Amino acid sequence: MSDIELNKRQETILQIVKENGPITGENIADQLHLTRATLRPDLAILTMSGYLEARPRVGYFYTGKTGNQLLSDKLKKLQVKEFQSIPVVVNENVSVYDAIVTMFLEDVGTLFVVDKDSILVGVLSRKDLLRASIGKQELASIPVNIIMTRMPNITVCRNEDFIMDVAKSLIEKQIDALPIIRDTDKGFEVTGRITKTNMTKILMRLAENDII
Amino acid sequence: MSDIELNKRQETILQIVKENGPITGENIADQLHLTRATLRPDLAILTMSGYLEARPRVGYFYTGKTGNQLLSDKLKKLQVKEFQSIPVVVNENVSVYDAIVTMFLEDVGTLFVVDKDSILVGVLSRKDLLRASIGKQELASIPVNIIMTRMPNITVCRNEDFIMDVAKSLIEKQIDALPIIRDTDKGFEVTGRITKTNMTKILMRLAENDII
Repeated sequence: MSDIELNKRQETILQIVKENGPITGENIADQLHLTRATLRPDLAILTMSGYLEARPRVGYFYTGKTGNQLLSDKLKKLQVKEFQSIPVVVNENVSVYDAIVTMFLEDVGTLFVVDKDSILVGVLSRKDLLRASIGKQELASIPVNIIMTRMPNITVCRNEDFIMDVAKSLIEKQIDALPIIRDTDKGFEVTGRITKTNMTKILMRLAENDII
Repeated sequence: MSDIELNKRQETILQIVKENGPITGENIADQLHLTRATLRPDLAILTMSGYLEARPRVGYFYTGKTGNQLLSDKLKKLQVKEFQSIPVVVNENVSVYDAIVTMFLEDVGTLFVVDKDSILVGVLSRKDLLRASIGKQELASIPVNIIMTRMPNITVCRNEDFIMDVAKSLIEKQIDALPIIRDTDKGFEVTGRITKTNMTKILMRLAENDII
């Protein structure tokens, strides 16, 4: 939202409404020693661009939204379900070697580990697998549940969660992907994955004018 | 830029200017059977929000920019130098084992490989190291230059390059990071790195209203 450059008079109006709102257009005009008609374009611009809100019979309010606040508002409303990828899961009993092979075959950076009921029990990152692979053990003989990150240390998200909260989790926890889950009686069922790659694509789509 | 919702009259004006521009305010008013004064707020909004451009003594032009075009324009101008991270480099003679240890110590997903003159000769991703680690060879005895991605197959970028071009490279080439380089007589000197983590942070900063 609105990179409109405000002129001096519009800035003054904003200031007046900020200090005196709610205030009618006529009162604003009075303070500026101008006619209501002269101010009409300025008030229209300030209202349409989201700086001010107008309520009939009450007057103008300052919304507190400056500059690109509304773009920001919209970005904050983007939800996980619109931007997710397909999850790749492995069973908790497969070997580390097989997990690495799956990771290459599916070309993903994170695997989700599930139990026999398809319930999320762990997460395997490339980093986890790399750490295991420099150990002394035979990779084909270690099951992934020995090395995986397990519940309750897994950060998950749900379809309705906000993209920006996921972005924050990815950065703060220094991970590449979150599982998207659905709550069931038995636990979390994995329905998707969301990654820094998805975030990069969202950024590209913003630049291509394809989202907001 | 400008999520202003245009009203019907503004849409009509846009259409008129699109088809007849450059066109004066008076001619637009004539076509709509309205006075110039009535149109003034609409024309001000359309001009300030970037849909139209006004040139003295010529009239209004349609800029071809719709909706969030100007946000998009600004995003497209973000440059690598504003958002880069510090690069982690290893010498081409170190072993794969040592490279993996460096990756863990520095907590990065990509290492850049340099020769004795500090010139970029290769890139090592977690994926490269993981692939090597499931081979039969002793990791401590293989030098990284056997397994690294080497010039000229390395995608690089420079300080002045656009973030969006880097984002596109990361997605299209399915890599996590690009080296930022400076051209020297001997070759590319690595000065930074830019990753999907940086892209995720840019997205967060947009939502926090911290960039544009």
